[in-house]
Formats: sequence, structure tokens, C-alpha cells
Amino acid sequence: MSISFQKLGLCRDARTGIITTAHGQINTPVFMPVGTLATVKSMLPESLSEIGVEIILSNTYHLMLRPGEGEIFKLGGLHKFMNWNHPILTDSGGFQVMSLAKLRKITEEGVEFRSHIDGKKCFLSPKRSMEIQYKLGSTISMIFDECIPYPTSYEYANQSTNLSIKWARISANNYVKREGYGVFGIVQGSIFQDLRVKSIEALKDLGFDGYAIGGLAVGEGHEQMVKVLDFTVPFLPKGKPRYLMGVGKPIDIVASVKAGIDMFDCVMPTRSARNGQAFINGGTINIRNKAFISDDSPLDSNCNCYTCKNYTRGYINHLMKTNEILGAILMTWHNIQYYSNLMQKLKKLIVSGKLYEYKNEELI
Amino acid sequence: MSISFQKLGLCRDARTGIITTAHGQINTPVFMPVGTLATVKSMLPESLSEIGVEIILSNTYHLMLRPGEGEIFKLGGLHKFMNWNHPILTDSGGFQVMSLAKLRKITEEGVEFRSHIDGKKCFLSPKRSMEIQYKLGSTISMIFDECIPYPTSYEYANQSTNLSIKWARISANNYVKREGYGVFGIVQGSIFQDLRVKSIEALKDLGFDGYAIGGLAVGEGHEQMVKVLDFTVPFLPKGKPRYLMGVGKPIDIVASVKAGIDMFDCVMPTRSARNGQAFINGGTINIRNKAFISDDSPLDSNCNCYTCKNYTRGYINHLMKTNEILGAILMTWHNIQYYSNLMQKLKKLIVSGKLYEYKNEELI
Repeated sequence: MSISFQKLGLCRDARTGIITTAHGQINTPVFMPVGTLATVKSMLPESLSEIGVEIILSNTYHLMLRPGEGEIFKLGGLHKFMNWNHPILTDSGGFQVMSLAKLRKITEEGVEFRSHIDGKKCFLSPKRSMEIQYKLGSTISMIFDECIPYPTSYEYANQSTNLSIKWARISANNYVKREGYGVFGIVQGSIFQDLRVKSIEALKDLGFDGYAIGGLAVGEGHEQMVKVLDFTVPFLPKGKPRYLMGVGKPIDIVASVKAGIDMFDCVMPTRSARNGQAFINGGTINIRNKAFISDDSPLDSNCNCYTCKNYTRGYINHLMKTNEILGAILMTWHNIQYYSNLMQKLKKLIVSGKLYEYKNEELI
Repeated sequence: MSISFQKLGLCRDARTGIITTAHGQINTPVFMPVGTLATVKSMLPESLSEIGVEIILSNTYHLMLRPGEGEIFKLGGLHKFMNWNHPILTDSGGFQVMSLAKLRKITEEGVEFRSHIDGKKCFLSPKRSMEIQYKLGSTISMIFDECIPYPTSYEYANQSTNLSIKWARISANNYVKREGYGVFGIVQGSIFQDLRVKSIEALKDLGFDGYAIGGLAVGEGHEQMVKVLDFTVPFLPKGKPRYLMGVGKPIDIVASVKAGIDMFDCVMPTRSARNGQAFINGGTINIRNKAFISDDSPLDSNCNCYTCKNYTRGYINHLMKTNEILGAILMTWHNIQYYSNLMQKLKKLIVSGKLYEYKNEELI
């Protein structure tokens, strides 16, 4: 048996559910903090658990370059390597090859590229990506796809979607089944409904444990993203988890949960934390602002996180301005807690049937 | 009542004891991790407690520049500011003015200097330093002295020691007594015994809660340092804590405890952690070395710290090479634990009367 998904509640299109894996359960809708290089930057795994994080995302592309999947395999796999015993989903590398790597050359077989670190020649393909994710021991592997940039022509989107469908088949064929592990397909097709539907039908034929929507959060904006979700999600299988890749801002997440999405990942809470941006009820503040120098209130008076229980805005302002590591730790802790609390709130509103009584802006 | 010191055990010159303060007890001999800017770099206060840290050191010079003692005072003092409820000792700024500040001008009144951060004109004096430490709420304040560079002429050392004695008197007069708080004198005199003795006699006349030895660990080397301790410590009051400032390497600490020192501080465990140097039984390793890439053992198999219980050398090698914050956290945790364990070991050997049965090298 691969991973399983049990739908628990429905509120129009929005759902709650439980994904059961070899590494424990995940309550959906869920946000996955990003641990690019086998660490969610600045956080101890125990702190993530304390926040309520149930699954993190890591990256095939980054880990194949540093330290190399062979090293991680030798050290017992990604879970043991990074001391995280809960589920890990790994991105396939498709997105990073497009956004980071240099001098890439796409062929039917895969992508030849140069590492963004040292320029070393590398190769990723559906087969290779699945091999790497197997060696990492990812709880949920992602198929290798081409992430279409935005905007793009219909012609290019069509051609690329066809290539991703071909690669999905190769990925599925090279995925090694393990009890409690799973593999997700990735829907491409840019902003074109017929391509999105074609992509979904092909993936459904192959039969995945979950379905991700790729090629969004690439510059199309909130309205366009929601539009694509509205005409795409209804075609996805109802009995499998739906994952919107790389999303996003709290407002994007709220809209997407309303559209029926179950899973999210984004560097936003962690990366913006290190830049001083804290998510608070109703918006954000930049804690480096001099207005906070003598502020004795917590980042967010409504927040229950370790940071807000123990530290003032004044102290964090000082830490961030002096580039102290503890600043990154405290800010990251708070922002992940904000995202975690947001998901809790959405879950409760789905269960109580009241989600759609609130405007998106009222929920962030 | 200021702080009190109870001697518990003696083993020749080495002592164990308890310092009781308004913020809790300190078991000596003790090592104080350095929290320059109101944070022990990369560590949560709770993690320091878990390690067994009982007191930390922070810096008047750094805090007066950033965020300013006024801001910390407004936010409830240094303990509340940084969420550390145990004792804090603050250096007076004398050492930093010499080692960091630019264009300094020493007069009988104090030191005029330019900030090492933005070149701003600043002034520190015995009176000003005591005011700042009062505003910070330091459990143990240090008098303001001139730290004599090494090597130096007898003439300069004599003149400077006289100035430090004068400043000691002004410091004592401007120290505001509070229940469970204390102030330490600082013995100067470079490597000259008569000057050291003169300094001690003057400080004893003023009557401090503890006596620090300054002007060592400034390049004189291990042998010279031990020589100075040997002819200085016997003149210190037996009933007060003795603090060797800025020391040091594990081997220096062992030798100094044997010479009768009770307290230490040094950036070594924390700073070297961030450079990849881990203290292990018998020496150090640099974890960035490629020999550790696939090493599945902990930093030190004899260590009981969080890092060693949960992570391999291979993982930490990866984190340090990719400049991940978690690398600094795990390395710092381990190194502070190493220093903490070293002090525990020395305490036990003093109590059992066996300290001098071991060569210094056997104890690190």
C-alpha cells in the first residue's frame, strides 16, 4: 500500500483530510515549510514539531549537487540525515533546473545543465530524478516535469505539456513502490484550460497518489492563478490529495483552499523572516523599521508561538539590525507558526461549514 | 547584601564554590559563554540552560553602541530583553575600547573614541561604565580599567596600573548597590609581579565582591600566563571569587583552575564553532574537512549533547559547507557543552582531591 488519503470534511469545494504515510499522518489542508538543503533554515526539527509542522519539503536539485544523494543514502537517507522523522516531500528538480541552473539544454531525454554553484555539467531526467528521490527516501516523490515560464505562447505550452506527459510516464515507470510512500503527478498546461485538462487526463491514466498543480506562482498574479485553479481543480480526482506547488502568500493560500487545494509549499515564511518581514494578523510588518526599537509588545499579540511568548519587537529589531543568528531563528519560528495557525483556522472553518462566510482578506 | 561566595571544596590551590546572586546560583569553577550583543550567538536561552550554563557574559561597549543602554533599560533591563533569567556578568568596556574602537584618546577622566561601527564619537569612563551597567541590570558589574597591551614596558605598565587603580576607586564610588548584585575589581600590572601586587592591594582596600585578573590572554602565551597566575593569585582574597578574563583554550582553563581561578569567559567555543572547529576529547577537529563527508559518527562519541545525540559529522559537514544557520547552531551547542562538561569534570576532581594527579593534557 502506498500513502492513503481519507477525506474528512467538505465545505463546498474546500476539504479536510488525512494523508497516512510510512512517516506518520498529515492533516490537510497543510502548509509544508521548505528545507531546501535538508534543513528548514535556522530551525531545529524539534521546534518545527512544537509549531505543529507535519511535513516539510526538500529539493532534489539542491541535494543532488550538495552533498549528493549518494552521501545522504550512505548516511541512512534524508530523514535520518536531517533528524526529521515525519513525512518529507521532495520536489523533482524540474522547477529549479528552470529557475537556477545555467546553460540548460532540454531534450526528449531530460535536461543538461550547469550547476548554479560551480558550473559543473549535470543531467536530470525523469529516470534520474526518481532514482535520486528513491535514494533520499522521500515519503512523497514528485514526477520530473518542465515548468513552463509565464507568459508563454499556446504553442510552446502545448509542446511542453506534451513533453511533461511523456516524462510523467517515464517517472511513473521508474518510481519504486514502497509501503507508505507515494508519488505525485504534476499538472502543467500554463493558463490554457484545454492543456490543463489534457495534462490531468494523461496523469489520471497513469494513476498517481496525489496530483500537483505546477506552473503557477511564476508571475501570473493572484487573479490569474485563481482563474486557472477554478477551471483546473474540478477535473482532478476527488479521492487524492491536491497540491499547489510554490504557493504562497497567505491570501493565495486562502483562495486556493476555497478552490479545493489540500497542500502548499513556499519559501515565503522562512525567507521573508530572514529579511525581517513578520506575518501578523491582517498583514506584515518589517521588524527592522526604527518604529520598533523600543516596542515592548510581541511580534503579534494574538500569536501563541515561542517567539511571541518570550521576546519583544524591540529585542528582535536589535537582533535583526545586528545580523544576529537568533534574529533569523525567532523570526522564522514566528512566521512558520503564523502559516501553521492559518491552516488550523481554515481547517476549523471547513469542518464548521463556515469557510465561505468570510472574505479572503478577513482570514489572513 | 551583595552576591555571596561560599567555598565548598579545596584541592591544593583549586577550589569549588557557589556564588549566590539575585538571579540564581553559580557553581564554580564556571565557564561563561559570551553573549556580546545580548545573545549567545545562535543559541536559544533554553538551550543554554539545557547545557547547564549558569551565567553568561555580555558587553557594555557593544550594548552602549547597539541598541544603547537606554533602549534596554526601557525594555526592562538586559535579563528581560534577552529572555535570560540567570546571572549575567558584563564586561566594563575597557577591553573593547582598546581592541575595537578607533582613534581613542585616553585621559585621566576616561577614553574618547570612535565607534567601530559608524565612527561616531563616544566616551567611556569609570562613571559612565557603571551607569551603563546599572541600566543594563547586570548581576555582576566590572570596574572600568585600562587593559595593557602585551608586550609593554615596565614604565607604561606602572603608569597604566596607577590609572586603573584610580579608575577602580571611581568605579567603586559610582557602583549602586542592589540586593544580590555585585561588582568585581580587575587586577592589572601586565607581567610584573610588583605591579600586580600593588593593584591587588589597592583593590582590596576598596573591597570588591570578586577579583578579576585582566591583561592576560593578550598574546603572552600559555607559559607566561601561568607564571603570572602563580605569582598573582596567592595575593588575592581567599573568600572571594577569582575571575580570569578572556580565557581561554581548554588547556589554559585547566592550568588556571589548578592555579586557583574560579571563573572564565572566552569567545572561543562559540566563535570557533561558527568556523567549523569542534572541541572533542583530546583536541579539535574542523568539521568542514572532506574526511567527514560520509562520517556517520557524532562530533564526539563521548559527548552527551543534543548535537551528538541527533546528528552525524556528515550532516554537520554538509551544513557548514553550505553555510546553513543550523550548522552554527549545532556546532555552538556542542562546543558550549564541551566547555560545560570540562568544568564539571574539574569540579569533580577537586571534590575528590584528585585534580593534580592528572597532567593538564589528560584533562582536555
